[in-house]
Amino acid sequence: MKNFSIAKSRRLRSTPYTDRIEAHGVSSYTVYNHMLLPASFKSLESDYHHLKKYVQVWDVAAERQVEISGKDSSKLVQLMTCRDLSKSKVGKCYYAPLIDNDGLLVNDPIINKLAEDKWWLSIADADVIFFAKGLAAGNKFEVEINEPNVNILAVQGPLADDLMSKLFGEEIRKLKFFNFDYFELKGHKYFIARSGWSKQGGFEVYVDNDIAGQNLYDYLFEEGKEFNVKPGCPNLIERIEGALLSYGNDFDNRDNPFEANFDKFIHLDSDVDFLGKEKLKKIREKGITRKLMGVKIEHNKIDMYCEKTLFADSKEVVGYVRSATFSPTFNKVIGIAMINKPYWNAKNQFNIEINEKIYVGSVCDLPLV
Amino acid sequence: MKNFSIAKSRRLRSTPYTDRIEAHGVSSYTVYNHMLLPASFKSLESDYHHLKKYVQVWDVAAERQVEISGKDSSKLVQLMTCRDLSKSKVGKCYYAPLIDNDGLLVNDPIINKLAEDKWWLSIADADVIFFAKGLAAGNKFEVEINEPNVNILAVQGPLADDLMSKLFGEEIRKLKFFNFDYFELKGHKYFIARSGWSKQGGFEVYVDNDIAGQNLYDYLFEEGKEFNVKPGCPNLIERIEGALLSYGNDFDNRDNPFEANFDKFIHLDSDVDFLGKEKLKKIREKGITRKLMGVKIEHNKIDMYCEKTLFADSKEVVGYVRSATFSPTFNKVIGIAMINKPYWNAKNQFNIEINEKIYVGSVCDLPLV
Repeated sequence: MKNFSIAKSRRLRSTPYTDRIEAHGVSSYTVYNHMLLPASFKSLESDYHHLKKYVQVWDVAAERQVEISGKDSSKLVQLMTCRDLSKSKVGKCYYAPLIDNDGLLVNDPIINKLAEDKWWLSIADADVIFFAKGLAAGNKFEVEINEPNVNILAVQGPLADDLMSKLFGEEIRKLKFFNFDYFELKGHKYFIARSGWSKQGGFEVYVDNDIAGQNLYDYLFEEGKEFNVKPGCPNLIERIEGALLSYGNDFDNRDNPFEANFDKFIHLDSDVDFLGKEKLKKIREKGITRKLMGVKIEHNKIDMYCEKTLFADSKEVVGYVRSATFSPTFNKVIGIAMINKPYWNAKNQFNIEINEKIYVGSVCDLPLV
Repeated sequence: MKNFSIAKSRRLRSTPYTDRIEAHGVSSYTVYNHMLLPASFKSLESDYHHLKKYVQVWDVAAERQVEISGKDSSKLVQLMTCRDLSKSKVGKCYYAPLIDNDGLLVNDPIINKLAEDKWWLSIADADVIFFAKGLAAGNKFEVEINEPNVNILAVQGPLADDLMSKLFGEEIRKLKFFNFDYFELKGHKYFIARSGWSKQGGFEVYVDNDIAGQNLYDYLFEEGKEFNVKPGCPNLIERIEGALLSYGNDFDNRDNPFEANFDKFIHLDSDVDFLGKEKLKKIREKGITRKLMGVKIEHNKIDMYCEKTLFADSKEVVGYVRSATFSPTFNKVIGIAMINKPYWNAKNQFNIEINEKIYVGSVCDLPLV
């Protein structure tokens, strides 16, 4: 695939860490929530091997926060998601599909409950803020909605606990998955969650002060030498292996949450009121005809810039692969695909055209094993 | 400025024309409405000179449409904009600022009225679809909202009429500015507006069929040889000279429409109901303290990836430049800046730091002359 450069502008916002990651050798960017998100440093494969063995610092400021606060904030947040948040607790993070009035997916943020009347929706790539503003205005809710200047640094990898406890103290090791708390370092209190867009473990630091964030970036590299710390970013190979879904890649506003395997977060029998509830009940009753599954393809290379069709020998469409990459662990191309119901049995075979040649692949469960 | 490559994926959608513009030598991309938008071909300056003399074909599929139809569609569209659309007519295009409940800008689309109950909002870079969906759900409007598969080809430049009339017939020369109509070519009816994101004149073809669009792309190059047709894209130099504003660059959701000089589209004394009307009345009463103006800087180069501060000799802040580039016509750097009220008199001087050196500039009116 030919390389094209990215034309920077204010509209593709830089982050407080951009100068640092460029000095650290970022080689490609994607754009996410109108912001630069690094996509590779040394190479996808080299970054992948390092992430699975050591610890990386990621500039994921592009995971923007939609802050919703005020009297009706709980009502508004609940209205947007099919996950029942009625028993949610301050200090916890909730992965929650957002749904529109047609029962279709709008986003899959992590919802952080900061107080009974204050929430941060840590969003995937779409302007959830305007969805919230539209709903609030239409329902005449008493809420304040804005995008705070919060720029996340993620610390990911098996040595993340060692590095973070060296900086923030042993207490941080006890922080449970999808919980957050405040930890102090050199006079600044950092909001830190045990979370992150990898399956290698680690933390996300929600930094609300640019200087404190830049200082933290530098401390992590100074103190991380003994753990072989390196700059990194969400890694395409690792995230497909771990079946971490990407809004806009694997699913979008034309898919419903059952098709994207969000079943355990779709609380149709709860008492809470949310958009699309009746539509989703009808979909549940009728059943879906396609869903996201894994695929493995017997080849060593694939360039994805739109979905690719998977065919049966009969020429019937098996489904569409939406994300894919070569995995050195599987030693083949792996991907996430929307598969039609007749082909849901794992190990069903298909054909796919890559660069004008036909390759063979098979359907498999997620996460890939 | 160092070059970084763009990491393609399904999430940064390709267009039906991507293969063609890559064959035609696109050199950089930006991302706009989650889609690839070409940013340069030969070079910014070379593209600029050609655009002002001949005719270019632009892949501006990234100007996505939000289609709003149904019984309450007019009510919803009006609710989103401070421009009075009560006398709007089918076949016309309306440039219209979208406003939220706080009186802040959400977008500045061209609103195309396709029928009394069918509208296309041809949007700048933000997910207006979710704003519309939120408002529709909250107000229980009977509307359908979706993003149709429409991929615009723009034909821009002083020879655009010659090329387009060669393909579509002499009738098309009579199409008035910001009007649209349907024109047939080889069996396909194309929706064509006299509009486009340059001041050089031309058309935008709203193509609703991928094959018809690809055919049109090819016809334009086959028939355009005598007019020296070339591939192009919205040109940073030309659009700053012409003061064509860019959402996300020159203004965003923290600015109000008075600050962005949209005064003639803010119809506070009309009878129509729209979001933020009372807030805007208060802003009008109180008056604004900053607004967008032009700037000229005595230098030959500037790289913009965030706003840059403009200082008076007193060290007081004059304002912030948000878009800027070197203009070969002005033989200096020109830009669009948010200027504080004490400095609104054109010719006020300021200092700006570019690459650790101080340069002198002056404030001027828009469009630049």
